[in-house]
Amino acid sequence: MDNLGLIFLSEVVGTALLTLLGCGVVANVVLGKNKGFGGGFLMINFGWGLAVFAGVTAAYYSGAHLNPAVTLGLVASGADLSVTEVFVYLGAELLGAFIGAVLCWVAYKQHFDAEEDPASKLGVFSTGPAIRSYGWNFITEVIGTFVLVFVVIGFGRVGDADLSTPAGLAALGALPVALLVVGIGASLGGPTGYAINPARDLGPRIAHAILPIRGKGTSDWAYSWVPIAGPIVGGVLAGLASIPLLPLL
Amino acid sequence: MDNLGLIFLSEVVGTALLTLLGCGVVANVVLGKNKGFGGGFLMINFGWGLAVFAGVTAAYYSGAHLNPAVTLGLVASGADLSVTEVFVYLGAELLGAFIGAVLCWVAYKQHFDAEEDPASKLGVFSTGPAIRSYGWNFITEVIGTFVLVFVVIGFGRVGDADLSTPAGLAALGALPVALLVVGIGASLGGPTGYAINPARDLGPRIAHAILPIRGKGTSDWAYSWVPIAGPIVGGVLAGLASIPLLPLL
Amino acid sequence: MDNLGLIFLSEVVGTALLTLLGCGVVANVVLGKNKGFGGGFLMINFGWGLAVFAGVTAAYYSGAHLNPAVTLGLVASGADLSVTEVFVYLGAELLGAFIGAVLCWVAYKQHFDAEEDPASKLGVFSTGPAIRSYGWNFITEVIGTFVLVFVVIGFGRVGDADLSTPAGLAALGALPVALLVVGIGASLGGPTGYAINPARDLGPRIAHAILPIRGKGTSDWAYSWVPIAGPIVGGVLAGLASIPLLPLL
Amino acid sequence: MDNLGLIFLSEVVGTALLTLLGCGVVANVVLGKNKGFGGGFLMINFGWGLAVFAGVTAAYYSGAHLNPAVTLGLVASGADLSVTEVFVYLGAELLGAFIGAVLCWVAYKQHFDAEEDPASKLGVFSTGPAIRSYGWNFITEVIGTFVLVFVVIGFGRVGDADLSTPAGLAALGALPVALLVVGIGASLGGPTGYAINPARDLGPRIAHAILPIRGKGTSDWAYSWVPIAGPIVGGVLAGLASIPLLPLL
Repeated sequence: MDNLGLIFLSEVVGTALLTLLGCGVVANVVLGKNKGFGGGFLMINFGWGLAVFAGVTAAYYSGAHLNPAVTLGLVASGADLSVTEVFVYLGAELLGAFIGAVLCWVAYKQHFDAEEDPASKLGVFSTGPAIRSYGWNFITEVIGTFVLVFVVIGFGRVGDADLSTPAGLAALGALPVALLVVGIGASLGGPTGYAINPARDLGPRIAHAILPIRGKGTSDWAYSWVPIAGPIVGGVLAGLASIPLLPLL
Repeated sequence: MDNLGLIFLSEVVGTALLTLLGCGVVANVVLGKNKGFGGGFLMINFGWGLAVFAGVTAAYYSGAHLNPAVTLGLVASGADLSVTEVFVYLGAELLGAFIGAVLCWVAYKQHFDAEEDPASKLGVFSTGPAIRSYGWNFITEVIGTFVLVFVVIGFGRVGDADLSTPAGLAALGALPVALLVVGIGASLGGPTGYAINPARDLGPRIAHAILPIRGKGTSDWAYSWVPIAGPIVGGVLAGLASIPLLPLL
Repeated sequence: MDNLGLIFLSEVVGTALLTLLGCGVVANVVLGKNKGFGGGFLMINFGWGLAVFAGVTAAYYSGAHLNPAVTLGLVASGADLSVTEVFVYLGAELLGAFIGAVLCWVAYKQHFDAEEDPASKLGVFSTGPAIRSYGWNFITEVIGTFVLVFVVIGFGRVGDADLSTPAGLAALGALPVALLVVGIGASLGGPTGYAINPARDLGPRIAHAILPIRGKGTSDWAYSWVPIAGPIVGGVLAGLASIPLLPLL
Repeated sequence: MDNLGLIFLSEVVGTALLTLLGCGVVANVVLGKNKGFGGGFLMINFGWGLAVFAGVTAAYYSGAHLNPAVTLGLVASGADLSVTEVFVYLGAELLGAFIGAVLCWVAYKQHFDAEEDPASKLGVFSTGPAIRSYGWNFITEVIGTFVLVFVVIGFGRVGDADLSTPAGLAALGALPVALLVVGIGASLGGPTGYAINPARDLGPRIAHAILPIRGKGTSDWAYSWVPIAGPIVGGVLAGLASIPLLPLL
């Protein structure tokens, strides 16, 4: 298998783990009869952070982007990725996120069947706003993703890692990124549920639309552009901001 | 004492610590009058994760499998373990899990005596399903254990550890595995209580059956095959999956 | 840009991240309709700790003071900072804290608008006492900040870092400081909400006074000196205490 | 100052930080009107764990025993400590624990005054049983402390640290011990509140007896021997057990 194929496979596996565990913790907390039912938002924050931890570990080979906002933010910051490579990353991230969501549905099948609220079911897959207001929701996602990508680039520079290569990115280690995601979730996740990753939201939303989930409702496509556009803008802005701030990072 | 004897002792000690602390946190949260009573599922997730942390530290010598699903997953991935060694690991893990559960009962003796609900008492020892459905419960355990063993193998490869030797496995360190177990518990523990380890479930179930626990009920042997077979299948699948994905890990 | 300019920029960016994420977790927990509403004090502790984690990472270049109590505590301990440098640090910390609070308001704009309680709105920006008693509140802030600065200096000595240079301070790493702040918040944050940082309190308080926040109340300037004077006294005492205790640290 | 004097000072400072932060988190959670009131047992577990983190960092010079059960457990395991040194450690630990408790009372003065329940006030200082039964309470403390000291010795061996010297002990680092204490608290703290340290219990109990705490009740001296004798027995047993298990650790 050539290098691009391995990058593709690595990102698929890592992003699948990310959304399996990430959607999983939401399922545990919001779907009735689960042992973690009502476990609270901090539990969701830790669950998503540790989902990142597992996914980054497994996607070591490809530098563990797992997130189009990271891929595009790195491009904006000047990382040496060809157009082909960018599409390989984006495609793999979306496919992986879809697969992880399907596995999450399988793992929680009985609880999806027992749950009566369609909104709770969709909430396991994709994010939605606490107060619907596309403009402000967009801004919240931009800010959250800016913090994610900017600090991730900062991790790389601290350790003298060369972020233009997968190996350099991987040298960051999984723990700092995981902790950062716990923090962003707790601190900026209140209004929109912190997609901060277009693949993490779109992949599972497609899965929600396709899967034969008992008693499911709408997939809320009207909102779906917010957790795509917001993170992309936030990630690219973070990449651009890192250029003048390079001596700092 | 020869090498096999030390491996046996190491796994017994480590798995005993694992189940003492792991069953302990459940006792604290579910048995009445405890200071941690009603502490929530996230507390149980951290308790089990840190139980792994303590157990892995103590079982450094033998590479800290502590779990037949790990032992068999490593065999499936091609680790160089003899049949004798495999049986030493499996036997030690089961014995250790039994001993840890007995110690947990001793530590919480007064609270077992004061508790009136037999199901809560069994819940301290062994896992049970939130919605009983052997097939789906089995699948949930397969998925959870697959994630555990697959990512543990990934930890090893990242650090260039040679997983075919105990020393290599031990080089993984206890913290990443502990965090992974916190995450799997939060994310995939809702439907079945995440055995993800046949010894962790069977050893304490035997203890529950044997010990003179005041007012205890059934040990639910009808369910007991699920947290044995599910984790073994999940672990072996993870080991097999790691072979074609070797360049990634 | 000269060295002082980069120090200024680094502290602005780091402190802005600190207060964006730190004020953000409070907003999530106390402003109605948020997904993290009612998430509890431990969630706030983790949010602020991980805010420190992100801020310290981003302010690597300048040694990540992010806090006038740290800057002045280091001066008191004998660190080699010129008067100009001290003012650059203090000014940058205050400006950064102001910017972060403004960004937090933007991220949570809809929830500020929907919230009816003015005290909750102020609580997102600045600290306030649980039981108002300026003298005792002051003492609590002195003790909390003493622990912060004293142990931070201890981190430096353990790793043989030279705290008189930014690079030396930065070598401490972000994780230990983050964990320490989680701990101080949980352990000493009950009476006053643990400012333990004059900039973290004053910058957002100025933002609260200036911003057109719908339905806001007073900025409680009567209390504002406590979270300035308390942390400065605590930090300076910690710096002075570190001199005779130097062999220990 | 000679070496013994520095060891004494180091243990006083470290143990004072330990009990200031440890008793502090209990005050925050159990004394009315605190911002962390009702924060739950997991918050107390993290607070105590991070109290250990701060204390171990500050007591680097002396190897950070901070606990007579650790000191005596190390002696039992064969560490090279003279009788004089042992008494210096024990005396410093007790004095430090007393000082930390006094500082905690000062930091929470207004909340002690406002609280009406004498049992809550004592609970900030010292441990007490959930179900009073001296024999079983003693056994629970033995088990919890055995785990603490046994795994701490294990940390040392993993990293090839020489535990017979302070520098060797200190090389363990503060984080693993902190995580272990979080875990023991969550898993074994239900019945007795996990003293697992005679100084941590006796020092604050003396402070409770001496300090002019408004509306305080009894210091419960009848129970006080349990959190002294239990941890000492557990620690010594762990030290003795480490000798035959040496090849493992």
